[in-house]
Amino acid sequence: MTDRPFDPYVRDCPTRQLLDRIGDRWTVLVVGTLTGGPLRFSEIARRVDGVSQKMLTQTLRALERDGLVTRTHHPEIPPRVEYELTEAGRTLQEPLRALEDWATVHMAGVLSAREGYDAAV
Amino acid sequence: MTDRPFDPYVRDCPTRQLLDRIGDRWTVLVVGTLTGGPLRFSEIARRVDGVSQKMLTQTLRALERDGLVTRTHHPEIPPRVEYELTEAGRTLQEPLRALEDWATVHMAGVLSAREGYDAAV
Repeated sequence: MTDRPFDPYVRDCPTRQLLDRIGDRWTVLVVGTLTGGPLRFSEIARRVDGVSQKMLTQTLRALERDGLVTRTHHPEIPPRVEYELTEAGRTLQEPLRALEDWATVHMAGVLSAREGYDAAV
Repeated sequence: MTDRPFDPYVRDCPTRQLLDRIGDRWTVLVVGTLTGGPLRFSEIARRVDGVSQKMLTQTLRALERDGLVTRTHHPEIPPRVEYELTEAGRTLQEPLRALEDWATVHMAGVLSAREGYDAAV
């Protein structure tokens, strides 16, 4: 890396790929789900209704690789694995929650705009 | 649609697809670029360095269809087409700017977390 600051408006800046990652629906929902504290895989899967095992595994692994989630293995019987937001991961809560709120509040307007657009073309 | 409120944690809620759309890198950068006021296609393309004509066309069309951007044709010589955020589109500025800022501030930490993760596996 050079010592230039990161800037997503600049071609090939790695923040562009990071934007896609954090703005992904599953990242938004998994981070939102982990806001209340550590959870097991099956608990996250239950709250993010309809997420496939494959997508949830990929999303958690990417968050872990990016340093935003830790995966802790508790050697009990039966063994227990928990996922938890790191300090950096917790800084994502607010912006992702804002995105989630935006989508919830504006969904009806967007659907009606789409109807109008599709009727006009 | 039913009269239940939208909830992205619920399977098949259309907000899930909307989250992907607004969290997409090109949407974040195009909305950020239009924050200063209306711009032509070529001006947006210049500021969002490296965006392909195809991706920019798709992004603007999706924003227009969702009621977030207007496309105005000024019948001058030569004709001029300008893109501008709608009132609903302007409400996206703040959450998307927060996402952009997050990515810029945390990129170095994420890259170093990735290095550590990849070295460990």
